[in-house]
Amino acid sequence: MVGHTQDKLELPELAATASSSPALSRIRTVTQHEYFEPYPTIKSWLKNEMNNPTQRIKNYFLSYLPFINWIYRYNLTWFWGDLIAGLTIGAIVIPQSMAYAGLAKLAPQFGLYSSFVGVMIYWLFATSKDISIGPVAVMSTLTGNVVEAVHKEYPQYEFHTIASSLSLIAGCIVFALGMFRLGFIVDFIPLPALAAFMTGSALNIAMGQIPTLMGNNKYLDTRASTYLVFGNFWKQISHCNLNAALGLTSLFLLYLIRFICLRASKRFPTKEKLFFFISTLRAVFVILLYLFISWLINHNDPKNPRTTVLGTVPRGFQNMGVPYIDRTLLSVFASYLPSTVIVLLIEHIAIAKSFGRINNYVIDPNQELVAIGVTNIFGPFFGAYPATGSFSRTAIKSKAGVRTPLAGLISGVLIILGIYALPSMFYWISQASLAAVIIHAVGDLIVGPKTLKQFWQASPIEFFIFCIGVIVTIFSSIEIGIYVAVISSGALLLFRIAKARGQFVGRVQVEQIKLSVDNYIRLTTRHIYVPLDHSDGSNPTIIPISPGNGIFIYRLNESFLYPNANHYIEPMVEQIFRETKPGKSNLYGSLGEQPWNLKTSRHPERDQQKDDQRPCLHALILDFSGVAHLDITGLQNLVDVRRQLDRYADKKVNWHFVGLSRPWLKRALISAGFGSSEQGHTVFSVANVHGNIDNGENNQDSVLVPILDINRPLFHADLDEAYEAAVASLPQKDKSVVFDDVKV
Amino acid sequence: MVGHTQDKLELPELAATASSSPALSRIRTVTQHEYFEPYPTIKSWLKNEMNNPTQRIKNYFLSYLPFINWIYRYNLTWFWGDLIAGLTIGAIVIPQSMAYAGLAKLAPQFGLYSSFVGVMIYWLFATSKDISIGPVAVMSTLTGNVVEAVHKEYPQYEFHTIASSLSLIAGCIVFALGMFRLGFIVDFIPLPALAAFMTGSALNIAMGQIPTLMGNNKYLDTRASTYLVFGNFWKQISHCNLNAALGLTSLFLLYLIRFICLRASKRFPTKEKLFFFISTLRAVFVILLYLFISWLINHNDPKNPRTTVLGTVPRGFQNMGVPYIDRTLLSVFASYLPSTVIVLLIEHIAIAKSFGRINNYVIDPNQELVAIGVTNIFGPFFGAYPATGSFSRTAIKSKAGVRTPLAGLISGVLIILGIYALPSMFYWISQASLAAVIIHAVGDLIVGPKTLKQFWQASPIEFFIFCIGVIVTIFSSIEIGIYVAVISSGALLLFRIAKARGQFVGRVQVEQIKLSVDNYIRLTTRHIYVPLDHSDGSNPTIIPISPGNGIFIYRLNESFLYPNANHYIEPMVEQIFRETKPGKSNLYGSLGEQPWNLKTSRHPERDQQKDDQRPCLHALILDFSGVAHLDITGLQNLVDVRRQLDRYADKKVNWHFVGLSRPWLKRALISAGFGSSEQGHTVFSVANVHGNIDNGENNQDSVLVPILDINRPLFHADLDEAYEAAVASLPQKDKSVVFDDVKV
Repeated sequence: MVGHTQDKLELPELAATASSSPALSRIRTVTQHEYFEPYPTIKSWLKNEMNNPTQRIKNYFLSYLPFINWIYRYNLTWFWGDLIAGLTIGAIVIPQSMAYAGLAKLAPQFGLYSSFVGVMIYWLFATSKDISIGPVAVMSTLTGNVVEAVHKEYPQYEFHTIASSLSLIAGCIVFALGMFRLGFIVDFIPLPALAAFMTGSALNIAMGQIPTLMGNNKYLDTRASTYLVFGNFWKQISHCNLNAALGLTSLFLLYLIRFICLRASKRFPTKEKLFFFISTLRAVFVILLYLFISWLINHNDPKNPRTTVLGTVPRGFQNMGVPYIDRTLLSVFASYLPSTVIVLLIEHIAIAKSFGRINNYVIDPNQELVAIGVTNIFGPFFGAYPATGSFSRTAIKSKAGVRTPLAGLISGVLIILGIYALPSMFYWISQASLAAVIIHAVGDLIVGPKTLKQFWQASPIEFFIFCIGVIVTIFSSIEIGIYVAVISSGALLLFRIAKARGQFVGRVQVEQIKLSVDNYIRLTTRHIYVPLDHSDGSNPTIIPISPGNGIFIYRLNESFLYPNANHYIEPMVEQIFRETKPGKSNLYGSLGEQPWNLKTSRHPERDQQKDDQRPCLHALILDFSGVAHLDITGLQNLVDVRRQLDRYADKKVNWHFVGLSRPWLKRALISAGFGSSEQGHTVFSVANVHGNIDNGENNQDSVLVPILDINRPLFHADLDEAYEAAVASLPQKDKSVVFDDVKV
Repeated sequence: MVGHTQDKLELPELAATASSSPALSRIRTVTQHEYFEPYPTIKSWLKNEMNNPTQRIKNYFLSYLPFINWIYRYNLTWFWGDLIAGLTIGAIVIPQSMAYAGLAKLAPQFGLYSSFVGVMIYWLFATSKDISIGPVAVMSTLTGNVVEAVHKEYPQYEFHTIASSLSLIAGCIVFALGMFRLGFIVDFIPLPALAAFMTGSALNIAMGQIPTLMGNNKYLDTRASTYLVFGNFWKQISHCNLNAALGLTSLFLLYLIRFICLRASKRFPTKEKLFFFISTLRAVFVILLYLFISWLINHNDPKNPRTTVLGTVPRGFQNMGVPYIDRTLLSVFASYLPSTVIVLLIEHIAIAKSFGRINNYVIDPNQELVAIGVTNIFGPFFGAYPATGSFSRTAIKSKAGVRTPLAGLISGVLIILGIYALPSMFYWISQASLAAVIIHAVGDLIVGPKTLKQFWQASPIEFFIFCIGVIVTIFSSIEIGIYVAVISSGALLLFRIAKARGQFVGRVQVEQIKLSVDNYIRLTTRHIYVPLDHSDGSNPTIIPISPGNGIFIYRLNESFLYPNANHYIEPMVEQIFRETKPGKSNLYGSLGEQPWNLKTSRHPERDQQKDDQRPCLHALILDFSGVAHLDITGLQNLVDVRRQLDRYADKKVNWHFVGLSRPWLKRALISAGFGSSEQGHTVFSVANVHGNIDNGENNQDSVLVPILDINRPLFHADLDEAYEAAVASLPQKDKSVVFDDVKV
């Protein structure tokens, strides 16, 4: 679509393209070389995108099984690391998963099934060595909510059937997102929303467990909104029983062990590793201790235990089989699926990214979605419910020195042991101590005051979004909390885009000072451009010089797209109307000639300024360095404003553009007639190709080449050039006022 | 929150703030002046926003009745303009509104009521003199759809009751949007979506009228999807009757008159005004002509007319009264309200803005929403149905020389005449000619091939959105079409934000060439920074110089917000890992020491490069001139990457920032520990306050002042300064390779 295009330029020959315009021939007297920019077309874009399809397809399919890339290098050093980390995770996940199954309203064995499938499948698809997939507190709570809601409406479905179906369907959705490379949508959940979700969920879960810890859980609905549970707990406080003694002491013990290990590892740094493992396994230790206590209390009368025990856990995989799905279940799930999918994604991806950064590797979010998807698709066949990456276990796995994702396999072996050998022992586990383990685990998800202070300092408005997210979670539910936080963040994003504004900038001549040890050097003198109103925080004693003479420099800091097109340009036009006079002077002599919306008196002829000192509008310099995109609405806006200003100035106003960062942007501007000028090139920039690196001496041997397309005299390389070009295009009589420039 | 703040600086005294650091005292040896930037706080922001509350409140309420600003200056010149325009609009709107009432499934008089209320109320609230509010084709069609759907479900409500209630409720919503200054949401409907909506609606309406024009409308459902109407029309073509003769000829006549007037006004430019009025009133003329023909054909047998006539139109306001609303109606409307509100807004605001620009005034979108709202709230009391700004009538009103919004009042008088004096005449109006008037009017809404070509050139992807919008409108309905176009535009917007990427840039030394008539001048030598990959379309023969020595310059073109934070930074980190070596060399000697995700062979010790020539990472220069906003997610990302790079380089990497355009941005960065350096200021920029304008000679008298806060040595005024500062901070041994700079 654009005149001359040329792909390769051969130096020092002249460009082959014939250009006969006088302006171009004048340019040729200066530069030994021409440059015509090849503007992009859909064809060239498609060619580039479709480049090397077989390799792309091969890479795409290989990326599904990343373990192929490392399994052949597996060695003993790696194995030792994986063994220790794998066994640690296995030991922790067994009690944790049984506790979390309770959150999901399921029998303990379903937690074991889920954790087994999680660790066994994930390693094949993992791009993160640290992530540990399995039952997590928030996902379990959410599953519990869904299970309860669906069961109330359709009692024909068993709890674990509903949980398994939910896992399968959500898994399919997540897998599809990964397959179609839509992992970037995870980025639409911002950090404050994530923090609000984590904090709110933790408060919700912890509050829901406190009645179990204290033994009065039979007397209130622990799944109501957090504030209701809190209120009802105090109403039913009199029903607390012996469980409270077990629960409170085990919670205290958990915090105590952690505290002691932390202090000890600081005191004895050489034994840090030992204390880390003690601290890590504190949950296992506490569960075993209280299992023993619970057995002591209750073994004489197992039928009527005095403290709540876990009860019978069947041996082996009791719920293997094809998960049940029908149309009714699908349609009931519809409203729960968005929150389920969001929760499956965000925690996992956020953890994976952050541990990747800590351990210096990069995860592939799309492949991680595939991994979660596959785990949740295959899980239900073993009786598992929705599982995703666990924050606490991932941190432990990383710190335990895991070397490859294969560690999951080792955890799996340990879990199998739990499923087949230990169930008879699990009977005596104290429910109160399990509640303590849960409360202790989710406590770490609550955002601390230090982070909150950082939020406030970095962005007060996002701090409010965080608060709203937490408050909504406490007063309604986790699902609504996350929706509110994500949607209000989205609204803020759109508002920020919509309210983008430009600034008028002016030129400041600056010198560079370089301090050495005992002296200083004054270096190059050059120009910088700062906002006239110093809105960037630059020193207000410095007065930037506006070009004057009807030339304006306007800087845009954001893309020029439909939500902000009007906001960008309206203040500019208003300012221009204030600071310039119309091309046709004395337009409105009498009242009748005046437009209705001018706020004047009834006798404008008296008020009129006889001698308007303001200049006529001559040229506009738009600094587009912050503009990455320009859409049709924005472009139309520029065209409309150009027409309006031409009419106002009663002549063709030159529009100079600076800092066009993408050829597509130029293509769009050119399509609307920008970039060309009748006067042709008057000021342009060249680079010295051979002498580029030299100290400013211009050898006549070296070749001067233009930097930008010589066919577009109004697209400039920088503001200095645009400034000079605009001034150079002034009629001779106006130039006297213009400040001269430093010549080298 | 930030240390030293100071609001005003008195020259030439030293700043009062005590600063004892050695770096600051060294700066003092150079500049006679210090500058500490006052960073914003919520308190200062609130103070600024709440500034002068009484004036703000007064202005807010005055803005509701803009006519106060001009009514006292009303004069005879304005009156003549308004009279002609008002009468023209009145004459056009009478037949048009009766035709459009048919689209809304209402009797003709409801169109008259709506147009009367529209013109009578709008002028009080108008910020546009050109807009003419009243029944319009698209809004009428949409009302018809709602009326039909609601009536089918709840036959107890009459058609006009439903239409009036819809008007009242939609009016309240629009009024509230204006009152709460939410007019900016209109900007979220981009031009391609608007164009698709206009084109699709026009095709839909025109196709719906063709059966009426041809006389076979009784044999098919004219409100089905456009493609169905088209198909069924041809199936029922045999039922066409005498109406077709009237309809086709009147349509032909309408186009003929316009064509002749256009040609004639070009041929006789002196009589342009006359031809314009003839052309404008062509619809009135055609309606009257065919009214006479229809009377000739049918007056002998009025009971069984041979061509369809309009029928009885009652005299006066027959449906005045309080509109009926109940809970059922409200809940039924819920799903129709979004599209009704969107259609009320977009056409009106788009037209108002565009005619404001043509006639050089600025409308207030919020006040226009108030105006539409009030019109639609009061309308139902006179029996009106939803009305908004009409594209065709606004164009005519503007061209007819309207001077103030008061012209509406004059149109109103003429419409009253129509309502009270002419109804008996209206009986004989030919329905086929009314259909011709509608088809002729909506034909102008279809986007022409020239605009489509511009769309394609400006943005191919938005061209596709336009096409999808039109296709969906044709194959389903206007409502779904507009939803699809708006939502896909929003998705594109978010996608553009999410996929933002930065570029590595390098320095090019350029000279400026200024062509004079017969010679040229080589001006200042300076540096510009272009992407290393020339992705901005700059001349590829020029090789930008990267600082090297482990210094990288990375430029961001868009805001650094949660959807793109990862995309921005990941490619930068990857590139840095490729081009620098880790701080601790020989990290991975044997296979066991290697991380699992490095793609090497089983014998890495053989492959290892003995002598890694790559530099160590030293400093990063981030060009933030395109970054208008930085949110918590983005900031956290920077912090994470800083930690990652420090770990990789095994030392503290300096992060230099350039082009921070807002103090809030700096506040956020400072809160995360950016901006400060242990080395203090080494390179910074100063301006010569008195000698600022001179030609480079630095008088010792003038005062050198720093441009940016001297407490933040890593926030730089421009890339040159950052480049020098980064190079200056290199250890002495590395500096030999760095290219020296031009000294003035």
